[in-house]
Amino acid sequence: MASKQMVYFFGDGKADGNAGMKEILGGKGANLAEMNRIGVPVPAGFTISTEVCKLFEKTDVQAPKWLVSEVYTNLKLVEKAMGAVFGDAKNPLLVSVRSGARDSMPGMMDTILNLGLNDQTVEALAARTGNARFAWDSYRRFVSMYGDVVMGMPEDHKTHRDPFEVLIEAKKEQRKVKFDNELTAADLKDLVKQFKAAIRKATGKAFPDDPRAQLWGAIKAVFDSWHNRRAYEYRKMNSIPHEWGTAVNVQSMVYGNMGDNSGTGVAFTRDPATGERVFFGEYLINAQGEDVVAGVRTPLPISQLDKDMPKVYAQLTAIYQKLEKHYRDMQDLEFTVQEGKLWMLQTRNGKRTGFAAINIAVDMVREGLINPREALLRLKADQLNQILQPIFDLKDKKKAVAEGRLLAKGLNAGPGAACGRIAFTPERAMELAQKDKVVLTRVETSPEDIAGMQAAVGILTARGGATSHAALVARQMGKVCVAGCGALDIDYVAGTMKVKGFTLKEGDWLSIDGTTGEVIAGAVATSDSEVIQALLPNPKLSKPEQKKLMAAASKGRVYQNYLQIMSWADQYRRLKVRTNADQPDQAQSAVAFGAEGIGLCRTEHMFFGEGSNNEKISAVREMILSGSVAGRKAALKKLLPMQRKDFEGIFLAMGERPVTIRTLDPPLHEFLPNDEASQKEIGERMGLSVEQVKAKVNALHESNPMLGHRGCRLGITYPEITEMQARAIFEAAATVAAKGVKVHPEVMIPLVGHKSELVDQAGRVRAIAEEIVGKAKVKFPYLIGTMIEVPRAALTAGEIAMVAEFFSFGTNDLTQMGMGISRDDAGVFLKDYAERGVLEYNPFETLDTVGIGRLMQIACDDGRAARPGIKLGICGEHGGDPASIEFCNQLGLNYVSCSPFRVPIARLAAAIAELKQNPPAKKAPAKKAVAKKAPAKSVAKKVAPKTTKPVANKVPVKKAK
Amino acid sequence: MASKQMVYFFGDGKADGNAGMKEILGGKGANLAEMNRIGVPVPAGFTISTEVCKLFEKTDVQAPKWLVSEVYTNLKLVEKAMGAVFGDAKNPLLVSVRSGARDSMPGMMDTILNLGLNDQTVEALAARTGNARFAWDSYRRFVSMYGDVVMGMPEDHKTHRDPFEVLIEAKKEQRKVKFDNELTAADLKDLVKQFKAAIRKATGKAFPDDPRAQLWGAIKAVFDSWHNRRAYEYRKMNSIPHEWGTAVNVQSMVYGNMGDNSGTGVAFTRDPATGERVFFGEYLINAQGEDVVAGVRTPLPISQLDKDMPKVYAQLTAIYQKLEKHYRDMQDLEFTVQEGKLWMLQTRNGKRTGFAAINIAVDMVREGLINPREALLRLKADQLNQILQPIFDLKDKKKAVAEGRLLAKGLNAGPGAACGRIAFTPERAMELAQKDKVVLTRVETSPEDIAGMQAAVGILTARGGATSHAALVARQMGKVCVAGCGALDIDYVAGTMKVKGFTLKEGDWLSIDGTTGEVIAGAVATSDSEVIQALLPNPKLSKPEQKKLMAAASKGRVYQNYLQIMSWADQYRRLKVRTNADQPDQAQSAVAFGAEGIGLCRTEHMFFGEGSNNEKISAVREMILSGSVAGRKAALKKLLPMQRKDFEGIFLAMGERPVTIRTLDPPLHEFLPNDEASQKEIGERMGLSVEQVKAKVNALHESNPMLGHRGCRLGITYPEITEMQARAIFEAAATVAAKGVKVHPEVMIPLVGHKSELVDQAGRVRAIAEEIVGKAKVKFPYLIGTMIEVPRAALTAGEIAMVAEFFSFGTNDLTQMGMGISRDDAGVFLKDYAERGVLEYNPFETLDTVGIGRLMQIACDDGRAARPGIKLGICGEHGGDPASIEFCNQLGLNYVSCSPFRVPIARLAAAIAELKQNPPAKKAPAKKAVAKKAPAKSVAKKVAPKTTKPVANKVPVKKAK
Repeated sequence: MASKQMVYFFGDGKADGNAGMKEILGGKGANLAEMNRIGVPVPAGFTISTEVCKLFEKTDVQAPKWLVSEVYTNLKLVEKAMGAVFGDAKNPLLVSVRSGARDSMPGMMDTILNLGLNDQTVEALAARTGNARFAWDSYRRFVSMYGDVVMGMPEDHKTHRDPFEVLIEAKKEQRKVKFDNELTAADLKDLVKQFKAAIRKATGKAFPDDPRAQLWGAIKAVFDSWHNRRAYEYRKMNSIPHEWGTAVNVQSMVYGNMGDNSGTGVAFTRDPATGERVFFGEYLINAQGEDVVAGVRTPLPISQLDKDMPKVYAQLTAIYQKLEKHYRDMQDLEFTVQEGKLWMLQTRNGKRTGFAAINIAVDMVREGLINPREALLRLKADQLNQILQPIFDLKDKKKAVAEGRLLAKGLNAGPGAACGRIAFTPERAMELAQKDKVVLTRVETSPEDIAGMQAAVGILTARGGATSHAALVARQMGKVCVAGCGALDIDYVAGTMKVKGFTLKEGDWLSIDGTTGEVIAGAVATSDSEVIQALLPNPKLSKPEQKKLMAAASKGRVYQNYLQIMSWADQYRRLKVRTNADQPDQAQSAVAFGAEGIGLCRTEHMFFGEGSNNEKISAVREMILSGSVAGRKAALKKLLPMQRKDFEGIFLAMGERPVTIRTLDPPLHEFLPNDEASQKEIGERMGLSVEQVKAKVNALHESNPMLGHRGCRLGITYPEITEMQARAIFEAAATVAAKGVKVHPEVMIPLVGHKSELVDQAGRVRAIAEEIVGKAKVKFPYLIGTMIEVPRAALTAGEIAMVAEFFSFGTNDLTQMGMGISRDDAGVFLKDYAERGVLEYNPFETLDTVGIGRLMQIACDDGRAARPGIKLGICGEHGGDPASIEFCNQLGLNYVSCSPFRVPIARLAAAIAELKQNPPAKKAPAKKAVAKKAPAKSVAKKVAPKTTKPVANKVPVKKAK
Repeated sequence: MASKQMVYFFGDGKADGNAGMKEILGGKGANLAEMNRIGVPVPAGFTISTEVCKLFEKTDVQAPKWLVSEVYTNLKLVEKAMGAVFGDAKNPLLVSVRSGARDSMPGMMDTILNLGLNDQTVEALAARTGNARFAWDSYRRFVSMYGDVVMGMPEDHKTHRDPFEVLIEAKKEQRKVKFDNELTAADLKDLVKQFKAAIRKATGKAFPDDPRAQLWGAIKAVFDSWHNRRAYEYRKMNSIPHEWGTAVNVQSMVYGNMGDNSGTGVAFTRDPATGERVFFGEYLINAQGEDVVAGVRTPLPISQLDKDMPKVYAQLTAIYQKLEKHYRDMQDLEFTVQEGKLWMLQTRNGKRTGFAAINIAVDMVREGLINPREALLRLKADQLNQILQPIFDLKDKKKAVAEGRLLAKGLNAGPGAACGRIAFTPERAMELAQKDKVVLTRVETSPEDIAGMQAAVGILTARGGATSHAALVARQMGKVCVAGCGALDIDYVAGTMKVKGFTLKEGDWLSIDGTTGEVIAGAVATSDSEVIQALLPNPKLSKPEQKKLMAAASKGRVYQNYLQIMSWADQYRRLKVRTNADQPDQAQSAVAFGAEGIGLCRTEHMFFGEGSNNEKISAVREMILSGSVAGRKAALKKLLPMQRKDFEGIFLAMGERPVTIRTLDPPLHEFLPNDEASQKEIGERMGLSVEQVKAKVNALHESNPMLGHRGCRLGITYPEITEMQARAIFEAAATVAAKGVKVHPEVMIPLVGHKSELVDQAGRVRAIAEEIVGKAKVKFPYLIGTMIEVPRAALTAGEIAMVAEFFSFGTNDLTQMGMGISRDDAGVFLKDYAERGVLEYNPFETLDTVGIGRLMQIACDDGRAARPGIKLGICGEHGGDPASIEFCNQLGLNYVSCSPFRVPIARLAAAIAELKQNPPAKKAPAKKAVAKKAPAKSVAKKVAPKTTKPVANKVPVKKAK
């Protein structure tokens, strides 16, 4: 006997569990219990706790006695509630066995339906329903499912298809019918016989006739499916801990396939692709739920149900509205109508696209269903990405249509524009994706395709509706998807797709528009999304055209909702958001995205300008190649006015916002040409032989350039470089300040590991700054600080903060050095690590909060102790990653800095992080916050007081096994 | 007025200060005070505190009023004690102004003698002494010294010599005399005139006639000389903090050049080169101290004084014995005899060679003067190096002598054998030393030569005695030195040295024997030192010859004293000392040196065996080049018996001592050949084209191999490698255990950064270990642990210690990653850093206790918390560095591991560290500890209880400015 309850009954308007018990009942189980409690009709059943999942980690485990006993006790309750008896020869109770994890993992784990059928009970079912065909159809479904899931039937070795499907096809051919439902009871009875024989032949085991044996086989198999490959991959992709485990739900069967007064469907309380407030879904008459989700038959839109079964539709409408109101979120429902009676099989918060998530969040606040804080917490910051992604260029699409390249139209299951090479299998999709973008093109997708779907930019299916596997997963991944495009004739064996007279092969280019459902042969150019159109002037257009386009886009619903979300985010976030930008146009874009400053301006990127800027790189090369201080100074003198001009542009673009400029960072060899032609050219320019240039290039070669002569080490060896850059920065700042712009330059010294390095470099910069500011007509403030990117800098931050006025975490290098992993070389073994489960995330995408994060915590603590109020920021690429931003918020940094296009994501992520970590007091003026133009700063201050001392390790930690 | 006393009087048997006040009085000042207190005759004077030094950091500082007033008050006391008046025209007091830092920095700072002389007082001096020549000689010395030191006279631009020396030479030529003392009073008077004129011409300033102006000029210049280049370099080399500052001693002059009843000398209470208990020193009749130290005139041995001035010699003998007894250490004395009266000018603990240090320490314990703990604390562990260094091979030296290559014999000023290329200037010495060993060959050395002396392996001078600058500095640096070899005719301009008919040029090979004073043309082969001869069998000899040689060497005094020191060290140290060894012969040597285990056996070094072992590297290459697991396994199968044999040898050599074996560490490309011939060969052997081999070599190329695919990352990608190595280790251990040896294998996984990596690798090793130990006839214990060399490993040591049974700090890589400095590439900028004072030590030689040390502290604390009693060690090269060992002792590590030849040094360093950090209680049985074969362990435990929680930052921290 387990020491606590492990099996939870629900049914008859009562339940042991409730919606708050997802941890142990899983999402499905908790919601089945909850639905019972609020009076929604749900077939009775019971949930076996997630805590039992661990028991079944090894495949050959027998259920312990206490579990057997608890299960049978609850089975009795179910029998009573449903008025049927499990395994009874006259009135048999049939059940489904389904997984149900804390977070929904649709289609990733296994399910068994119609369990309890055998050669006796099938006759009883036939007798009680007066429908032998239905009974045998249920039985053949059960046997095939059980064969696949529990008994591990291998695929048909000729066709690589499900072995039972192959038998059905053969039977249909033999009987010369087209559809499954044209097969008779006798046909199905024969199929059951064939199925069992096939199982015995392939597995060496007999199909179990004892319902209790069936039940335990199914329970074990479903628990076991938590550990299968695709579930594992899915958890990795979605950061779901492997140790959570799944619950198992054993629930009475109800049948949507008992004739034309039966049916089954899946529905969303709002459109999961667009977020529109419409009851959205699909159903099939005389079918089981499997048929809808699997996309085998293309179902009818839910609105049709009103005509087919008006009473049921009215009841369903009342229920969906009740459920949405109860759960205060968009619901994803499964229902079955058995001979005119409506049963709800599942409700859960519905997965949705980024578009839908944003629109639903804003709508629900407007409807008064949730408050802005809840709206923000419903979002994942990365979802904003979708509304920033390019859409198809209208002109180019028109041209394609005019050329007759519009092949077909399917369901617009995942909004956006995707253009890539066709791959017909997930394996090929992954291969092709190494080089090009890929559109995974399938008859229908199944959970096995998940990795291929991830690798593709777009997913196209010939079968399946808006709630099919393809649509569901694509929405969740934020992939462009066109589903159920029936016109496509896909032949896997031939490797072709025929449509409208075209024959497309693997590797051919294809464009799919997930917003309209259009499928177009060849590539179609893309253009900016609505949000981008509204925010950024299109450089290809004339000024008036730009204005017109921006005005038009600004009226769009997506843009308006974007603005609303950003406005709420700005109200609640504590972190400032800056951008990494090296050119004035980047800076301008970033400002349009809401950047509050530049966190990293890499001066070296300026050296590689185009066109006339070629002079820059030449001057840089001269500087490097000259062997003397005088020669370097001469070259730097040429560079000075060019750098100054660059900085003027940046300061002008950023206005009053602070601008952090990093002095020269990369090793000098990166600026020298490696090809002989360029070496010759620069040699001639400088009066050097190719050999001399080569010799210099070779002399600069390093064993480990990452750990070599770069960053402030260059500035210490060649102080004249730092001094030139300081001069360019402060002269530019003085010029722009004279124009009335309140500039705030911040000079950042890279790769400092010792205080002494910063003393040297900061001293040189300050001397020049003082000289220039001293002479300037308009004075301006400035800061000198350092990157914290060498582990030693973090470890001695207390010393360094005596000199540095700010720290900016360079987490790219801090990760490289702190983990001892060269990003350039890590591909080889990080792949192996991921495959072997040694390291389950890429530390260059998401910050390692445990190790590297500890360095950051030390630096923050010691830096603040040495210089109270020291400005702290991050400018590594993690600054744009929501999970990493959450950690930064916890550390109490002042700002994050990321690429311009990630600024909105960072703003939202910062708000979500703050709301999670420091939930505002209940009395916060929620209503007021709805107002679009609320005074962001003051409210934010009221509701989210600054944390002075962050608490370590609150953020869910990325795990290594 | 300063808030506390800044000027301290001494004289007349009284003193304000004492020997304990070195911090503020400097060593010289404190000892002058102390000598006064114990009744030794010392000319009166006063010391200006080191705290005043800071005032003179800037060159144009005026002395503050309070200082002027304090100095004049004390000057009055001196006048009273000496019965003379400063600047008085009839009875003038003359003074010397000398530096005096806390630690002696001989010759590094400036000195002014005879201060107070001018055109009036010189006449008074002449009148009072009745010796005009003496008076004018003093005056010309004063003017030249003052001109050089205070007024900054440039060197003569033609001869690059001292401008005043040039004038003297000219005068001697004019007067047709050979020696300085043949010049008359009139000659000297004329020289004074010439000197003053030269000063005015070169500096534009007049020589000051006012004694008070002279005094302040001198005080400022001497304080200022703390900041000069050579003093700075010296401090860096000797780890003396720049902020200590020097004191200034103003002391009454006494004169050794008042005629033949006067003289001056320098003496040591024991021989500073050999440590022999003889009164050792030199003097000059009718000379000033300068003449002895500068090596300009070759002085007489001190024993001669007994004949010249028997009364004075008796008095001196009594004084030196008193002083040695008082200070309980070998003293370095300066004295002057003025007209038959003995004055002591200085006493201090004498610098000595490593030989002398060891011998004196042991002798003084035997004499009952000090106890063994004090003896150990007197030593620097690195001094042991000297007695381990090779000496000249007797046969080869005999041969050189037979060939007539013995050029001359000088003073044996620094024992040992040095063979290198001749360099005549310090600059050239530093240049040549980049490629070859160098013997710096000079007429005489001066403080300007210090960096060149450091760069050379040996120092040879034509002039100067055993207490000359060359001898003094060489002793202190532990350099081989032959001094005062008068037969050499060195011509800097011609760049030649003529001797005995030979003419040697710069770059020619020369051998000098610092033990015998012999100078030999060409290279002479070296052989083992006495200690090495006694400890290690010479592989070139037959077994009986080996035995004979070892027995003979064992009787030597140096070896006996080595044994004594090691015995004491083993009594007091807490740290175990292991060795890094990859081959059985290395292991055997290490055991002879006292290694208590192997801390690091690098399996990859075994792959590059010689002779028949070529098969090993071939098998390794096959493994790397094969593209499949099967191919790799086949190659590893060939490798297994070879590795097993290697390990058997190691286990046999180490016996019961623990042996830590590291699994494969370096990136695979290091094993592949880069030249086409070898590529072709291995290709042919494996049936691959050169192109295929090249392609593989290229594929393995990495941007930053240091941070690439190596260490445990290899073992995770290719688990079969780890498994082969584990099998080889444990099969070897089982075989050796079966022979009755109690083996203790410890398997160490390299480059772990995540616990999961160790889980993977340790799991594989443990599985194989269990299998083999399970089947073995004789069971044996083993450990599996990891290196801590990736910063993240230190930062997550708590997690890692859940799996690791021991940690071994790989401080080479920990330093590279923690500082972000590639050791291979650091040469370029660490040179600049050193020159600019940004980083004053090489972090790859001496551990950065502040930054990298903090990582180690974190790892120790968290590792112990997670696994109490976890075994902790260090196997980076810092494990053999005394300063780093001190830190390791403080961390409470269990052991350090270093190269075999550094094992004795590490043993001594460990004892010194423990005695410094945890001084034993006074009641410890000191007498007992003298016994040679004291039960080391039990005593050590009694006197040095284990510290469980080390205190951070007690070790003097290496500084970056």
